[in-house]
Amino acid sequence: MNQQFEPAAAGAARRATAAPPQTTRQIVLVSRPRGMPEESNFALRDAPLPQPGRGEVLVRILYLSVDPYMRGKMRETVSYTPPFELNQPLAAGAVGRVVESRSPGLKAGDIVYGMLGWADYWVAKAKDLCKLNPKIAPVTTALGVLGMPGLTAYVGMLDIGQPKKGETAVISGAAGAVGSVAGQIARIKGCRVVGIAGSDAKLEFLRRELGFDAAINYKTGDISQALRRACPEGVDIYFDNVGGPITDAVLAQIRHGARIIICGQISMYNRDEPEMGPRPYPLLLVNSALMKGFIVYDYQERHSEALAQLVRWVKAGKIKYRETIVEGLENAPKAFIGLFKGENIGKQIVKVPE
Amino acid sequence: MNQQFEPAAAGAARRATAAPPQTTRQIVLVSRPRGMPEESNFALRDAPLPQPGRGEVLVRILYLSVDPYMRGKMRETVSYTPPFELNQPLAAGAVGRVVESRSPGLKAGDIVYGMLGWADYWVAKAKDLCKLNPKIAPVTTALGVLGMPGLTAYVGMLDIGQPKKGETAVISGAAGAVGSVAGQIARIKGCRVVGIAGSDAKLEFLRRELGFDAAINYKTGDISQALRRACPEGVDIYFDNVGGPITDAVLAQIRHGARIIICGQISMYNRDEPEMGPRPYPLLLVNSALMKGFIVYDYQERHSEALAQLVRWVKAGKIKYRETIVEGLENAPKAFIGLFKGENIGKQIVKVPE
Repeated sequence: MNQQFEPAAAGAARRATAAPPQTTRQIVLVSRPRGMPEESNFALRDAPLPQPGRGEVLVRILYLSVDPYMRGKMRETVSYTPPFELNQPLAAGAVGRVVESRSPGLKAGDIVYGMLGWADYWVAKAKDLCKLNPKIAPVTTALGVLGMPGLTAYVGMLDIGQPKKGETAVISGAAGAVGSVAGQIARIKGCRVVGIAGSDAKLEFLRRELGFDAAINYKTGDISQALRRACPEGVDIYFDNVGGPITDAVLAQIRHGARIIICGQISMYNRDEPEMGPRPYPLLLVNSALMKGFIVYDYQERHSEALAQLVRWVKAGKIKYRETIVEGLENAPKAFIGLFKGENIGKQIVKVPE
Repeated sequence: MNQQFEPAAAGAARRATAAPPQTTRQIVLVSRPRGMPEESNFALRDAPLPQPGRGEVLVRILYLSVDPYMRGKMRETVSYTPPFELNQPLAAGAVGRVVESRSPGLKAGDIVYGMLGWADYWVAKAKDLCKLNPKIAPVTTALGVLGMPGLTAYVGMLDIGQPKKGETAVISGAAGAVGSVAGQIARIKGCRVVGIAGSDAKLEFLRRELGFDAAINYKTGDISQALRRACPEGVDIYFDNVGGPITDAVLAQIRHGARIIICGQISMYNRDEPEMGPRPYPLLLVNSALMKGFIVYDYQERHSEALAQLVRWVKAGKIKYRETIVEGLENAPKAFIGLFKGENIGKQIVKVPE
């Protein structure tokens, strides 16, 4: 593959020469959050580190992803993935360096991506890892623009949104890891792109850096009025990452044949009861509009094509990205909580220094 | 066409021999309803009847359709069609007999379908009429199972619902003109079909006459509990004619990959403000579900194929239908208002006796 991700195939198994660590720090979920997660829901603990078995590798984690969807896994009930277990380490997308390999496909020093624990070290099955090629792009992009968030934006905007030249696309959570890519894809396809975000710094990022046609700060002023100004002909595509009153406001301005992509509902993730709002069905009816929820894994067969295209767009400068990087494994809970406070611009990543 | 509907083509123009009437009774909208329509919003008036011009025909109206969508046209604001004008006759789908023709395509005695006034007589352009063949089916079916409601059920259930063998389809407003056909189509496609309706007579009709697998009276008992019993594996398809709390209850039980067809929202048509309810977006998200509003005219290119199939199903006894017929032009407003009180089983028609 001429992409950042290579299946873990080439190279012979080899043992690292330095003595492997016997323990690792890890972050465990000690209680299930009620409402907004708090740092007290998490704890940093030392745990014994098993030896990698046959077909496994020991990975030194370099970068951890924190993602809004993880909030759903902190509930006891099954969402689209099983819940995190109490007193067990959290797991998420991560990038690491192979320290010791008992698989012929990976060798010490290889940089890999996979679903790994929030920890300094992690033992993983080699078959569950992708080898990254750092020459293609910085390895952190495997957690953002060239990873799950980028793929999510790609299949959501293209497969559901079906953007056409001259249409108006509105993106909520526009400055986030997914929204920023979704908006740029709509722009590549010739749409007028309007982003909704929660700070002037984010608006600046959307307009200046990503070239959005307009950006709306939902925290200041009347969002319906701002939408009417930014979308004089109404909304053809709405890529929703947030839900709640922002979504109510956008739906009230959809056009005939609109497509509404339900990608995320971050405003709802900390609620236990469904939130009340205007029922949207009459708006969908009179506008013959489509609304579709999805998760990126629904489109797994598209991922390699999507990734290849995202790499081309990033290299051509057509898709720009930003990453917000926090240092220290111990700060992962804070970074995760920050997602719900709108603290990140672009992809929120935790760097785990060696 | 080997169907009930023939374009008005065959036959020579011919004048009727009896003296044509000079005036007609008609029902006009005298005020726009607020909330539930009342009979005082309508008035029966005499009006002069123009002579048909070239290309026009004079039609004696035999059967009028009353449809929930007409409520939207009674507002001042444009819905998907322009509003009715005050002090002008209402218009709707109707079946009539040509009395006088100034078009080569139609002759006196022909039975036609078109959008005609709520009146005894109406002058229409021949090109806007379809000639009916009464040998195919009773002409009233052009207003119901073999007309706009049947076509609506067909494209909604098949194009959006995409029913598959073994799936569970839930229909709200199941005993109505559209719902009763939509449910039977899902049944033909091998679904378990569950209808929601508002009286024991309707439930009996759904189970005994149409062969629904289960039927739920939303006015008695706990609808969520009844749904769980009727749909033990959850809901794959929801064909919604009503909206409101019934829709909330069904959406809470959708399965992964569910399709929700927003065909009508009769519970909302008499409201001026959007009604509040639980926001459905998180449910669509975690279930990767699709929701689509539509009107039958979105699928116009499918209509002749759809009609041919509906005729075959009706002839084969696979689709059964019922009509509720009220006599007297003067009773059209009452019949229309009755739609919102759930008074009809199957298609509500007004017969205009000669």
